Amino acid sequence: MLQPAAAPRHSAPVSHAEMANAIRALSMDAVQAANSGHPGMPMGMADVATVLFSRFLKFDPKNPAWPDRDRFVLSAGHGSMLIYSLLYLTGYQDMTLDELKRFRQIGARTAGHPEFGHAGGIETTTGPLGQGIATAVGMALAERAMAAQFNDKLVDHYTYVIAGDGCLMEGISHEAISMAGHLKLNKLIVLWDDNLISIDGPTSLSVSDDQIKRFQASGWATIAVDGHDPEAVAGAIAAAQKSDKPSLIACRTVIGYGAPTKAGTAATHGSPLGADEIKGAREKLGWPHAPFEIPDAILSAWRGIGAAGTAKSAAWEKLHAALPAEQRAEWDRRLKGDLPANFDKTISEYKQKLAADKPKWATRKSSQMALEVINPATPETLGGSADLTGSNNTKTAGLNPVKPGDYSGRYVYYGVREHGMAAAMNGIALHGGLIPYGGTFLVFTDYCRPSIRLSALMEQRVIYVMTHDSIGLGEDGPTHQPVEHVASLRAIPNLLVLRPADAVETAEAWQVALQQKHRPSVLALTRQDLPAVRTTHTEENLVARGGYELAAAESGAAKVTLLATGSEIAIAMTARDLLQKDGVPTRVVSMPSFELFDAQDEAYQEKTLGPGTVRIAVEAGVRQGWDRYLGIKGGFVGMSGFGASGPYEQLYKHFGITPEAVAAAAKQRL
Amino acid sequence: MLQPAAAPRHSAPVSHAEMANAIRALSMDAVQAANSGHPGMPMGMADVATVLFSRFLKFDPKNPAWPDRDRFVLSAGHGSMLIYSLLYLTGYQDMTLDELKRFRQIGARTAGHPEFGHAGGIETTTGPLGQGIATAVGMALAERAMAAQFNDKLVDHYTYVIAGDGCLMEGISHEAISMAGHLKLNKLIVLWDDNLISIDGPTSLSVSDDQIKRFQASGWATIAVDGHDPEAVAGAIAAAQKSDKPSLIACRTVIGYGAPTKAGTAATHGSPLGADEIKGAREKLGWPHAPFEIPDAILSAWRGIGAAGTAKSAAWEKLHAALPAEQRAEWDRRLKGDLPANFDKTISEYKQKLAADKPKWATRKSSQMALEVINPATPETLGGSADLTGSNNTKTAGLNPVKPGDYSGRYVYYGVREHGMAAAMNGIALHGGLIPYGGTFLVFTDYCRPSIRLSALMEQRVIYVMTHDSIGLGEDGPTHQPVEHVASLRAIPNLLVLRPADAVETAEAWQVALQQKHRPSVLALTRQDLPAVRTTHTEENLVARGGYELAAAESGAAKVTLLATGSEIAIAMTARDLLQKDGVPTRVVSMPSFELFDAQDEAYQEKTLGPGTVRIAVEAGVRQGWDRYLGIKGGFVGMSGFGASGPYEQLYKHFGITPEAVAAAAKQRL
Repeated sequence: MLQPAAAPRHSAPVSHAEMANAIRALSMDAVQAANSGHPGMPMGMADVATVLFSRFLKFDPKNPAWPDRDRFVLSAGHGSMLIYSLLYLTGYQDMTLDELKRFRQIGARTAGHPEFGHAGGIETTTGPLGQGIATAVGMALAERAMAAQFNDKLVDHYTYVIAGDGCLMEGISHEAISMAGHLKLNKLIVLWDDNLISIDGPTSLSVSDDQIKRFQASGWATIAVDGHDPEAVAGAIAAAQKSDKPSLIACRTVIGYGAPTKAGTAATHGSPLGADEIKGAREKLGWPHAPFEIPDAILSAWRGIGAAGTAKSAAWEKLHAALPAEQRAEWDRRLKGDLPANFDKTISEYKQKLAADKPKWATRKSSQMALEVINPATPETLGGSADLTGSNNTKTAGLNPVKPGDYSGRYVYYGVREHGMAAAMNGIALHGGLIPYGGTFLVFTDYCRPSIRLSALMEQRVIYVMTHDSIGLGEDGPTHQPVEHVASLRAIPNLLVLRPADAVETAEAWQVALQQKHRPSVLALTRQDLPAVRTTHTEENLVARGGYELAAAESGAAKVTLLATGSEIAIAMTARDLLQKDGVPTRVVSMPSFELFDAQDEAYQEKTLGPGTVRIAVEAGVRQGWDRYLGIKGGFVGMSGFGASGPYEQLYKHFGITPEAVAAAAKQRL
Repeated sequence: MLQPAAAPRHSAPVSHAEMANAIRALSMDAVQAANSGHPGMPMGMADVATVLFSRFLKFDPKNPAWPDRDRFVLSAGHGSMLIYSLLYLTGYQDMTLDELKRFRQIGARTAGHPEFGHAGGIETTTGPLGQGIATAVGMALAERAMAAQFNDKLVDHYTYVIAGDGCLMEGISHEAISMAGHLKLNKLIVLWDDNLISIDGPTSLSVSDDQIKRFQASGWATIAVDGHDPEAVAGAIAAAQKSDKPSLIACRTVIGYGAPTKAGTAATHGSPLGADEIKGAREKLGWPHAPFEIPDAILSAWRGIGAAGTAKSAAWEKLHAALPAEQRAEWDRRLKGDLPANFDKTISEYKQKLAADKPKWATRKSSQMALEVINPATPETLGGSADLTGSNNTKTAGLNPVKPGDYSGRYVYYGVREHGMAAAMNGIALHGGLIPYGGTFLVFTDYCRPSIRLSALMEQRVIYVMTHDSIGLGEDGPTHQPVEHVASLRAIPNLLVLRPADAVETAEAWQVALQQKHRPSVLALTRQDLPAVRTTHTEENLVARGGYELAAAESGAAKVTLLATGSEIAIAMTARDLLQKDGVPTRVVSMPSFELFDAQDEAYQEKTLGPGTVRIAVEAGVRQGWDRYLGIKGGFVGMSGFGASGPYEQLYKHFGITPEAVAAAAKQRL
């Protein structure tokens, strides 16, 4: 089993085995140096990766951002030394030998798992299993959509994935596989590291799936090969490139290939091999070189592959240069992530109309109406919903669906696949040229939380349109009523949570979300109708402040400040009337986004929160997160447990979230 | 297509069609009365459900808690009127006609989605799609485990599931199906409502999976039938009962069967049919009766089926009574959910030993050592891990694995299926007789959050053993480092979050978690070693207080109170030394559980938090949730963004979570 793989038909004097062994050696040595990491996967998949990178992958180490490069996703992200080795060997300039030596150290580009943004060639952050394959589905979809929107010479690349057993056990893999098969994303090619091992031991401890049959059931082309036979792997990839379906290549490999006693066992998965085992592996593999030493011939064979890519990217630049000027400018704008020049003006005019019309819409409806303005103005939006289109109000006039084989549409029916949708949106955003938004119920952010977290960690402009955002959804009951969700989303770093109060705030929230080049946003929107509260037009986007005085005290200095978001703004406004009728001057502060408010200067924050006033926060969710704004005398009116099934007006009364309760809470503290 | 189904070979004068139409009528009428709900599914699946309940399901409406009843799980929970109708028709005493008329009203047993605990016969809360089928896997596993642990006459029931297209699109379904197939849970029978419709329209908009092939790939027996042909359905169920694999029965149905213009369309899914359509359906179905009126003959046919179950449960009671006294007492204890009589003593003795030994263990190791004591003492625990056994330290000596066909073991290799594991644990807990615990990394609570939420909503004793609970996990980097997770778990109502600081606190945390009959717990445990801080034995479980003074100020009245949890207790203790060396009397309060602390009386809370002292909280996570304990002068030392890859000691310094930083934060506020 551990015989060196057959020599490839390769014109260089360097053999396939030597090139693959360079990956193996760097991987085991870097893990050993770090005294932590995962050598087994890179050693097992070195042959497959060598074939992919040396014979198929279209990439240019000198131009890692080349828009039409093939995307390579290491879904089994724990095998990060595989990609770091390849990036170094092929000549990515920011992946130096020194970086490999600093594997897993603070500040190194070579983090424990591949982190997007740390180095060129890392297309997405992976590690949480299944995310890579699901993100790749979005990349493959974005490729087809961009080809349809521009032209299929300018955009014509593959998306390759290396996935492990863990990726395929995760539920998200089902959503991804099912979606890719349905949409016939035939330029998506998954190389499965079929090594029969997971952390607990042989995969037979926990799984008996026939993966070939499973992928076929979802409309994939499949083939199984010996992952240590380079010609077999190459033949499979060549066939996959020609398929009219996405392809699974099951690569039977030996984890830790080359390790004399540990190969083929879970012992190689997540720990350094140890000095003795590494010594033995060097012998077994015929790799006498010192740690981190790559013989010149081998390095230059690898570098030659990288250099060949530079010619390809140069050829593409000519295609790009030959585009009609207007189309080229549009391409460049979209790839840079800039919004159209007239975007802000469009929103401002729309806001002006809203301030005059004063519509009493649910904010999900306000969101749709904003999108009716936004989508025609920004051709880069790609909308969708996880089978709640009519509830999330995410589809606007003129958005046609993306269909199997026809990717010209701008709306994706994601199916009941919240997690797959979120990961695909990450892939769409990472791909470039498109801004994805997608909807489900806010309570189901739980289903896609691991991908939302990655949107935030990778700083991607993904917009989550999350409707039915409280007990205000009514009869569907506690399983569908978010209570802790707004708080728990606010807890995620770099995630913008926006809970607008009316049509104007919703338009502003969309504007803010679209303006974030490096941040995902969640829009929390109501099912139920709300009154208009922003009835005077402001040129300034007030939501962008995070919090602002919506209504001043009517007469005299304010004694009470009511802080609220979204649907509870209306309750706060009525409570203000009650209090003022009783002679208590009361202000209302709208707080659509904690994150944006916290970014204001201290003086603005202090002034807005109303120094010296009694502060009461009102939100139909848990209190967590509000205390920092409330001060010692502050109060909170909201939820302290799960919701219930019933008409929403009755639920608000049942749970005591009423103007009367707010007024009483304020008075108690005066 | 809408021809009435063929009359069954049924001895009663009432036809199958009449019995099924009773479900259809009640469902459409209750939805209409509520002016909200989902009539399409109950009308489409009425034939299948009638066959299941009238010819196969083992249940006793007079004794809904009969331990050996078949479990029926309505995974497609939006079709709740299906089960409410059946419970009423078969004679469950708490499901009156009045309850049906109060469908979706506050306080009714008939919530929008089936809520566990609202009425007998509702085996689990469903609605979030895919949860039911995954929970049912746990029930089916528990059935086999209890049969192995007691005897297979006392425990010998099926678990039936009705699942929809949405359930099968959700990723969790993959984890559930794969696990059930691997474990050969042959008494699990899934009836798939194959109606070709989801909310957005025809399923062909978003999915092309060959479900039969997919289930076969995971080791299931499969059959496809006309869901309106009662004999075909009956034949399929009878065959499934005899299979040595779990079974999928694909039931091709017409959603909203009977509705004259809307049947077979998404229009019947989630809205009342409307008066005209209902009138037409009455004609089409040959159901001339008034809303909520069930003719006596039909009702008594249904009631007869219910009554037949009473005889079966009585027969089972004899089996139970015939058990040897000791075994019967053990059975009764486990079914009641009581812990063994000597449990508290066992823990106390173990704590005494720990206080003397002062081990410097990681709390994940402390957890394993606690389990080494607990598992022999409590035969009802059923452990497991999502492929991180050696990292979560969840397997103790003498716990053998559950294997396909051999369910005598007490340890489940759940595979890389966090979500499936969590849902299965809900099913195990709901089944009764077992206390499930399962491990993964704390960061992956995100992967199973929808099921954790259901543990809390259903008040189930499920114990989540979540290790690697902060940047303290080190080199694996930000994708594996929880930052917001402790806060976001604390946000979930009725979930106990326990973050112990050393071996004694970990033992106490386990004791508290096991004592919760109506609450799930998350144990947040470190990867890294920690010093012993509880070195004097206390009979009292101090963790049960949620927060307590761990170290008083050394001399004089305390000026500073340091609040911390888990691994940051050691940092707080060192900070206390630094401060006291500088003449600042400082206390340390350990806060292993906010929920338990908040349940203490106000005087205790106030005293513990240290009135008048400067308070600094230290936790290697986000600040959210701490402010309410900190007062106006309070400070926080922790994380404000994502982590990084590196050795953990360096990460703590890098992010400024050090004794020096804590001492400085305190001094700044003095």
